[in-house]
Amino acid sequence: MRRQDAGGDVVNRIKELILRSGLHPGDPMPTEAHLVEELGVARSSVREAMRTLSSLDIVEVRHGHGTFVGRMSLAPLVDGLLFRARLNDGNDLRTLREVVQARIALDLSIGPGLLAAWAHEDLAPARAEVERMREAFAAGRDFAEADQAFHAAILAKLDNELMIQLSDAFWQVHTSALPLLDVPPAGDIRLTVEAHDAIVDALEVGDAEAYARAVHAHYAPLERALTAASD
Amino acid sequence: MRRQDAGGDVVNRIKELILRSGLHPGDPMPTEAHLVEELGVARSSVREAMRTLSSLDIVEVRHGHGTFVGRMSLAPLVDGLLFRARLNDGNDLRTLREVVQARIALDLSIGPGLLAAWAHEDLAPARAEVERMREAFAAGRDFAEADQAFHAAILAKLDNELMIQLSDAFWQVHTSALPLLDVPPAGDIRLTVEAHDAIVDALEVGDAEAYARAVHAHYAPLERALTAASD
Repeated sequence: MRRQDAGGDVVNRIKELILRSGLHPGDPMPTEAHLVEELGVARSSVREAMRTLSSLDIVEVRHGHGTFVGRMSLAPLVDGLLFRARLNDGNDLRTLREVVQARIALDLSIGPGLLAAWAHEDLAPARAEVERMREAFAAGRDFAEADQAFHAAILAKLDNELMIQLSDAFWQVHTSALPLLDVPPAGDIRLTVEAHDAIVDALEVGDAEAYARAVHAHYAPLERALTAASD
Repeated sequence: MRRQDAGGDVVNRIKELILRSGLHPGDPMPTEAHLVEELGVARSSVREAMRTLSSLDIVEVRHGHGTFVGRMSLAPLVDGLLFRARLNDGNDLRTLREVVQARIALDLSIGPGLLAAWAHEDLAPARAEVERMREAFAAGRDFAEADQAFHAAILAKLDNELMIQLSDAFWQVHTSALPLLDVPPAGDIRLTVEAHDAIVDALEVGDAEAYARAVHAHYAPLERALTAASD
């Protein structure tokens, strides 16, 4: 038990040391030897704390290059939600359904900001991703990569890194959970592909209502598949 | 390097074992001895993996009671964002500002669901929390606890555990970050206290526009303090 507390303590002391040293994401971390001396704890404790910090993306181990201050991404959130989704599999696909609802809420809530940010801006990059998605779909290929790139392209104009990362985190949970949870493929997924074009159309003309309709159309095939799966 | 990979591997293998065993949050975890035998790895590796899983809230160590499957809460998200907020302190309070924007977006996006859920329901518990908040404020005491209880009471009717937890996670980051970041107290924080009543009023009469106005009023003093702090 004491050992457990000591472990958390070393984690917190390394976090304080990062703050105190004025380090930033991407900066090299002090060496293990330095941490051992600075904190006055065993090398094994430092190593273990670093592993915990790595799982939280507070430090990043680049194999062959050393250890750096991490980007504090939402990767732990994605891992946790994916695990929760798989654990709740018997439980009515609840986590996946909640993630999809959260994506819809998030997409709708950033609508006004996106409409303002994209006024008079070039939407060609987003349009190109829709084209890639359409081609992959027509060829029977997976279009997840183009889908992710599309949403990243649209959100790039949002001046809120947290919401961009949250949106991508939910995208990852949703996309990774679907095959794990045996949700039957949506028969009308073509409508989702086309809804991406409708999102771009709405941003192009600055139409808030058309944007909201396109967001709902984007998720409708998946929502129908989830309803069918839980019947 | 190999050791690092091996560590992550044991973490993943314990996660798979939880899934395979059909365990759920709150269930007792298999003993350390059982895990050592089942996974064929050293006791120290199991112990270390369990510590990482504990930091992710995938397992929960209850001192004196043993180790259980965790609640997979958003606690790691709160820790990560708080750390990021402190790391970016010099950087224009950016993380805190983003968290506040995310809270506003989330509150607005759940408006329609809350209005529907609270129609014909008793809002007295939420009203009581506003009263507690008002009394604490009048007495010059901290009202964070009543504030958190208020938001939990309002969100209790939302049929989306993820969004309830996300809302509380952002509340925690916001509330914990404020004193750490030396944001000057909002002079007109009384308006925030009163805005809680306006939220209840809006839910009581089912007025979507009044709800949105109350959400904006709720954050306005803090937004002004953040603007002043970065000037």
